[in-house]
Amino acid sequence: MALLDSIHTPDDLKKLSIDQLEALAGELRDRIVTAVSTNGGHLASNLGVVELTIALHTIYDFGAHPDGPDRLLFDVGHQCYAHKMLTGRAAQFARLRKKDSVSGFPSPEESPYDLFAVGHAGTAISTAVGVARGDLHNGRKNHVVSVVGDASIVNGLAFEGLNNAGTLPRQLLIVLNDNGMSISKPQGAFSQYLERVRVSTTYEEFKRFSERIVRNLPSSLGHTIEHAWDAFCGGLKGAMFHGQMFEALGIKYMGPIDGHDLPGLINFLAEIKHVDRPVLLHVKTVKGQGYEIAAQEPTMLHSPSPFTINGCRVELNKGAGKSWTTAFADAMIAIAKDDTRVVALTAAMPDGTGLSKFEKAFEGVTPPRYIDTGICESHLVAMAAGMAKTGLRPVAAIYSTFIQRAFDQVWQEVVLNNLPVMFALDRAGYVGDDGAVHHGFLDQAFFRTMPGMVLMAPSDEAELNAMLRLGLSLDVACAVRYPRDNVPTEHFDADTSASLELGKSRTLRAGDDATILVYGALAVNALLAAEQLASEGMDIEVIDARFCKPLDGAMLRRVLQAGRPVLTVEDHHHINGFGTAVAEFAVANKLPTERLEILGMPDSLLPHMTRPQQLEATGLDAPGIAARVRAMMAASASLAGPDAFAKSRR
Amino acid sequence: MALLDSIHTPDDLKKLSIDQLEALAGELRDRIVTAVSTNGGHLASNLGVVELTIALHTIYDFGAHPDGPDRLLFDVGHQCYAHKMLTGRAAQFARLRKKDSVSGFPSPEESPYDLFAVGHAGTAISTAVGVARGDLHNGRKNHVVSVVGDASIVNGLAFEGLNNAGTLPRQLLIVLNDNGMSISKPQGAFSQYLERVRVSTTYEEFKRFSERIVRNLPSSLGHTIEHAWDAFCGGLKGAMFHGQMFEALGIKYMGPIDGHDLPGLINFLAEIKHVDRPVLLHVKTVKGQGYEIAAQEPTMLHSPSPFTINGCRVELNKGAGKSWTTAFADAMIAIAKDDTRVVALTAAMPDGTGLSKFEKAFEGVTPPRYIDTGICESHLVAMAAGMAKTGLRPVAAIYSTFIQRAFDQVWQEVVLNNLPVMFALDRAGYVGDDGAVHHGFLDQAFFRTMPGMVLMAPSDEAELNAMLRLGLSLDVACAVRYPRDNVPTEHFDADTSASLELGKSRTLRAGDDATILVYGALAVNALLAAEQLASEGMDIEVIDARFCKPLDGAMLRRVLQAGRPVLTVEDHHHINGFGTAVAEFAVANKLPTERLEILGMPDSLLPHMTRPQQLEATGLDAPGIAARVRAMMAASASLAGPDAFAKSRR
Repeated sequence: MALLDSIHTPDDLKKLSIDQLEALAGELRDRIVTAVSTNGGHLASNLGVVELTIALHTIYDFGAHPDGPDRLLFDVGHQCYAHKMLTGRAAQFARLRKKDSVSGFPSPEESPYDLFAVGHAGTAISTAVGVARGDLHNGRKNHVVSVVGDASIVNGLAFEGLNNAGTLPRQLLIVLNDNGMSISKPQGAFSQYLERVRVSTTYEEFKRFSERIVRNLPSSLGHTIEHAWDAFCGGLKGAMFHGQMFEALGIKYMGPIDGHDLPGLINFLAEIKHVDRPVLLHVKTVKGQGYEIAAQEPTMLHSPSPFTINGCRVELNKGAGKSWTTAFADAMIAIAKDDTRVVALTAAMPDGTGLSKFEKAFEGVTPPRYIDTGICESHLVAMAAGMAKTGLRPVAAIYSTFIQRAFDQVWQEVVLNNLPVMFALDRAGYVGDDGAVHHGFLDQAFFRTMPGMVLMAPSDEAELNAMLRLGLSLDVACAVRYPRDNVPTEHFDADTSASLELGKSRTLRAGDDATILVYGALAVNALLAAEQLASEGMDIEVIDARFCKPLDGAMLRRVLQAGRPVLTVEDHHHINGFGTAVAEFAVANKLPTERLEILGMPDSLLPHMTRPQQLEATGLDAPGIAARVRAMMAASASLAGPDAFAKSRR
Repeated sequence: MALLDSIHTPDDLKKLSIDQLEALAGELRDRIVTAVSTNGGHLASNLGVVELTIALHTIYDFGAHPDGPDRLLFDVGHQCYAHKMLTGRAAQFARLRKKDSVSGFPSPEESPYDLFAVGHAGTAISTAVGVARGDLHNGRKNHVVSVVGDASIVNGLAFEGLNNAGTLPRQLLIVLNDNGMSISKPQGAFSQYLERVRVSTTYEEFKRFSERIVRNLPSSLGHTIEHAWDAFCGGLKGAMFHGQMFEALGIKYMGPIDGHDLPGLINFLAEIKHVDRPVLLHVKTVKGQGYEIAAQEPTMLHSPSPFTINGCRVELNKGAGKSWTTAFADAMIAIAKDDTRVVALTAAMPDGTGLSKFEKAFEGVTPPRYIDTGICESHLVAMAAGMAKTGLRPVAAIYSTFIQRAFDQVWQEVVLNNLPVMFALDRAGYVGDDGAVHHGFLDQAFFRTMPGMVLMAPSDEAELNAMLRLGLSLDVACAVRYPRDNVPTEHFDADTSASLELGKSRTLRAGDDATILVYGALAVNALLAAEQLASEGMDIEVIDARFCKPLDGAMLRRVLQAGRPVLTVEDHHHINGFGTAVAEFAVANKLPTERLEILGMPDSLLPHMTRPQQLEATGLDAPGIAARVRAMMAASASLAGPDAFAKSRR
């Protein structure tokens, strides 16, 4: 029987010997590799924190406790797999990220041990400060622990959290899990600073010190570690320099210590548990630790799709077809070769946005055509505005869900200043197994309120290309949105692929009985729905709206005045999306709305499952769209009487 | 003739002697005090940077230059008055912030010397990095200067900017204008860090050093200052500690130097102009410098309304009436006395949000009932989520325009986690003379897409009270919005003040001919419009919608099915606002929309003028609302035939 099967709650960890805990670490690693190779997920980051997670659960009481539970907050949350298995979810873990099984991020709905549902980076110091203040307010004497990666800590919000944590009159432990890797390469000066700390000659001394002090001090000495540490640092010239960033902010800095030395970690955490002020513990880990291939390929294996291991090689089980992401990267490379003003920007997502391909294509070019800002979306957008001011054409490639982090810069720096920054919003719509926290559901709600902005969504690869080129030819800010999915394998009929013109739709399929007005990549589903309905005798028009702002007013007048059912379809919240824009237009122009219906994402939090399952669950797949149109046709016919209904099914 | 009248462009400064420049500083101060006492505006921050501004314009060429102009970017922009007067706008300055005159913030539309329109804090390092990268891309060898205050630099975006600036392979000067004051008191550990730098015993040495080096070194030595500085610091134990935060980020730190020593500033800037890497120059200034009363009362005189000086006392020319801000503060004090779970939070706006009154009411209470996070809106919201997790009821009092900076935390930390944080959105709608960058025009567009959130807007003070209490009794996140205006002086008729019920509107005035459906504080204008129309024989119903989410469906069915004109009115963008919610509801429920019209803020950037002027310009004042209803009645009558029109005017 595996040791892991005997762990029902973290309390069970406390009964195990160090040797058993180390064996348990091996079991956790095996389960992580198996689950991720089967289901996809975050691999390297989770392998890196196995010992840290065991140590935290061994020392703290994140479950029941007379003083109230201790609090564990993961930043980003993509390092919670070992935590999930140690808190009663080992059995379900094999079906990681599958529908109705455990999600890939912390989820309070799954377990009280998951304090916050997260997925966006940089927030866990701030939420920890809030929890610490709240527990203080309620008179509790518990412990609060926040685990933050070196990629997240450069985010501005993490800095705000540190700045405010430094004023907290109580215990708070911030564990800086430093694997020297952002999601890909570390970015920014702060990463270089951490690197200097890591490679400094005193690191080995620190390591020896931490081993000595935590293994040999009797635990009864308790609080003395802080003083011992200070005495040690005082004697070690330059050591305090390590923590200068944090000490300047009023936070006690300790480290770096070895994040894979389990006994060392356990003893160290036991000692600093009682320090009654904010402490940052710098833990050095290796991304992918314990799994050679993951440690060698940490970028590819940060968040891989399911994969197969052939000897010493990992092969991602790539599906057939070309992703929107790759289509974007290919288009950008071609465009940037033609237009030297174009610069591509990512916030720590070179692979996710496809720009790693762009980076390679322009490798060694100076000034650089590609910039990775690290997880600093706000900075990226403000910087892009500055670049646009000088005549460049920056393309900010940011997931729809992450552009939420820079809305104020889109407003103030870009739109208020009327600067031509292009936003390439990947992962717009349902994202599948990453779940609710990553769905791209409200970009249009925000962007459409921005005066002068142009909003586009392509239905196929040719249109994506045309939209990127059109956007870069305009003198205003614009956004192009596309999903985490493949481009349609067949191009739509050539004769319906009218050349792209600002604010003009195109007709993908003619039809007299009803109109599906689709905005974006769900066009392929709308066409499939129309084909199905054709087989049932209904003649459905499918229009590719292309633009959400400006709208194609002439087309809207035509279809709304025709008096037949009109269904808008989009992979965006049905509140304040494209359909809402159509409704606003109809109201403003006194066009009939009785037969207008809006189909989009519902006003609820859809959890992780595959993207096709999500589209099915919300009626956005082809059968769902067909069913909706069928119902509209029936209602319309009953409104108009039996003759009209018969006609409609001619 | 005043010296200032001879300054047409900054080039004219370069012809003046130091004595003349110092006299000019005095003139600028006099003009600033006069203009602000007449028009309101930012006083203390502008008085503090007079010498700095003169020095920057004397040393750099922010206008034409063979290598392209140097670039000057102000963070926040509330310190640009001297800059405006030195760049051709001295004559208009007496009408500061008046309609069609100079605005209180940088404005590229006014002058090419204003590079970015700004008003929100923390962005100017990032935009400067972008401009610096763009100029490098274009092969220019110009200089880029960013001026940032000590209150702004704690914002997370400023940190992201610093982190990325540290990797810039070229000149970039960041001037840290440190007056030791945020807008009110400094907050967070970083402020304490700067304070330690300021009061350190070596400061005087630095000052003497800077005086010596910049006055005595022949300018031909040029680049040597960096080396001289390093040599000096190397010999001064602990001096480098001053800049530890910045040096850790790869930015050369120099300072602090005296920001009111004009010759010292000029010489120092001339020397460091040629350093070919990012430099942060720490300049110590006094908020309100040169104007004794402002220096003594920097918080009151940060951004005062027009004021009068009586002897040695300043009296703000307060209008009659009670502001929404004060009404909120009074309500919060009463509520927090009843409910110990309630904690009030502000991001550096204790006076602006009214919470300074709350702070006084709970002075000395521990744990604190009031927290000021500094300009860290994202942190504030994430922290509030953490507090709510422990059972507290945090109230985040943030201007509508500034909540844009924390949208992602509203989504992830609050809504995704289903936590009951209340948002009190002051300055919702047109804000008057601060202009476009401060209008609160899109909070509802964002918030209404958040599953489960409750959105409210009161029409009078009693309703504000009731909404705050209702919101705190719910177990979900909610928002209450109200404008920069006074509460109505007369309460609405007692018999129409139905007690507040979730998702229910109230009727303020009965009427059969048309319905004005108003969301929020413009109810008073709607009632005035109805009175005017009554005098013309039209009988107009006025409904106070109270809720934007959930909507009062029964009421909407009634008024839309009645077949008479229905006008929605709100002080929010007409795109994705309350009216849009009504349109969506009508479409979803097959209710007639031909006589529905939506009146809100237009899709354009309305500049600074008074709030009444803004409401007039957009038809949101009582005459504008009356005119719109009159036109709807006429159109409706012509649709229905002359009889109906006659009836409508019975």
